[in-house]
Amino acid sequence: MKFLGPHACEEALARGELQVLRVAPTAWERQSKLREAARVKGVVIHREPVDALDRRAEGQRHNGVLGEGGEIRLSELEVLLERIRDRGPLALVLALDGVTDPHNFGAILRTAAAAGVDGVVFPERRSAQVNDAALRASAGTAGRVPLVRVVNLGRALDELKEAGAWIYGLAAGPGSRSLFAEPFDRATVLVLGSEGEGLHEKIAERCDGLLAIPMPGGTESLNVSAAAAVALYQALARRGG
Amino acid sequence: MKFLGPHACEEALARGELQVLRVAPTAWERQSKLREAARVKGVVIHREPVDALDRRAEGQRHNGVLGEGGEIRLSELEVLLERIRDRGPLALVLALDGVTDPHNFGAILRTAAAAGVDGVVFPERRSAQVNDAALRASAGTAGRVPLVRVVNLGRALDELKEAGAWIYGLAAGPGSRSLFAEPFDRATVLVLGSEGEGLHEKIAERCDGLLAIPMPGGTESLNVSAAAAVALYQALARRGG
Repeated sequence: MKFLGPHACEEALARGELQVLRVAPTAWERQSKLREAARVKGVVIHREPVDALDRRAEGQRHNGVLGEGGEIRLSELEVLLERIRDRGPLALVLALDGVTDPHNFGAILRTAAAAGVDGVVFPERRSAQVNDAALRASAGTAGRVPLVRVVNLGRALDELKEAGAWIYGLAAGPGSRSLFAEPFDRATVLVLGSEGEGLHEKIAERCDGLLAIPMPGGTESLNVSAAAAVALYQALARRGG
Repeated sequence: MKFLGPHACEEALARGELQVLRVAPTAWERQSKLREAARVKGVVIHREPVDALDRRAEGQRHNGVLGEGGEIRLSELEVLLERIRDRGPLALVLALDGVTDPHNFGAILRTAAAAGVDGVVFPERRSAQVNDAALRASAGTAGRVPLVRVVNLGRALDELKEAGAWIYGLAAGPGSRSLFAEPFDRATVLVLGSEGEGLHEKIAERCDGLLAIPMPGGTESLNVSAAAAVALYQALARRGG
């Protein structure tokens, strides 16, 4: 959603809906108060040429200030299942099994938005939620990803499987194959575990396969948001972008 | 470097050299003070079975407590150049052009350690340094990566090029090719710019090619540490792991 002009942006900021603020150089100094108020709330601020703002505003008046954001709306699992059936082998979904750190959660949403995933599924409990800290870490991109909060992640994975998706757990272990060996030529759900404990046993059991990220450097783990970036982009690359 | 037993770990902690602390379940409660002191300083703490500690200690006494760390030593560019000549087309180096956030810097070092890069090159000025915050974000892995701090990054890139490496700048733009299109079949340096400004012009000019990370989701950028993870692992994957 776009907010055109300083007033609309101020109001969106007050409602907690402003995620990105774009200010033209000509309005930069005049809007220092708005910028400061937005900065304090973790809004991402860009200084952009007027013609870039013109394009974003699609011809409407913006007075050098354009905001983006909106209330984050959660999506329904049913909608995601439908999308998977539609997109077939191109579907790509992320499921988070116990990512509790809001910074990691938000960073993952940012990468998921860039990668254009069809949805991010996460449980109601034992998980970070879409709060201010997560929105900040997502750099204003969280609103672009269909976010699906479910009561029971295991059951949601079963439904995703029934809709035709292949469920991969990211986990290093004796039963894991290399992430690099997987062609990702069917609808894919990538399940990431918590940083400390990895996948829960009941979740790992539900996966069609476990994939390990190779670590030729010999360290034991990647940060969960780095792991998400590696896995999502490996899937995209294998599909030819 | 390993520190065996609680005393050696306490001393290493006091010197600021302790990065990882491993405690056996049998010593867990007894070492609550050491654990707390380590936690406050950002040391990564693992609870590990005694037999795992035995293996790490290679038969030496550890009394249920084993630390890892050491003074972070910077490496020399000359050593890195030599390694590139030795490793030939398998060499993989990361160069950071103005990554100033210590959290991102440390997160990048962690991924670089997992990917087994031959070195991370960064400038003395306008860059995060290997400080406490960066070490913490690296989760104790910074000591595993040859870190090369240089006075002039542009000149260092010239020397890397002379040693046979191909220099790729990560940058989206009209002259960029897709990251996915690159075979990475020769010695490679990946240059990442700062989150806000990207690559400096003088650095971009020196690159043999510019690579863009595809963003089918239509957002404008990845976090720099996510970009590093995607690019490093894309290079590894194309080389077959």
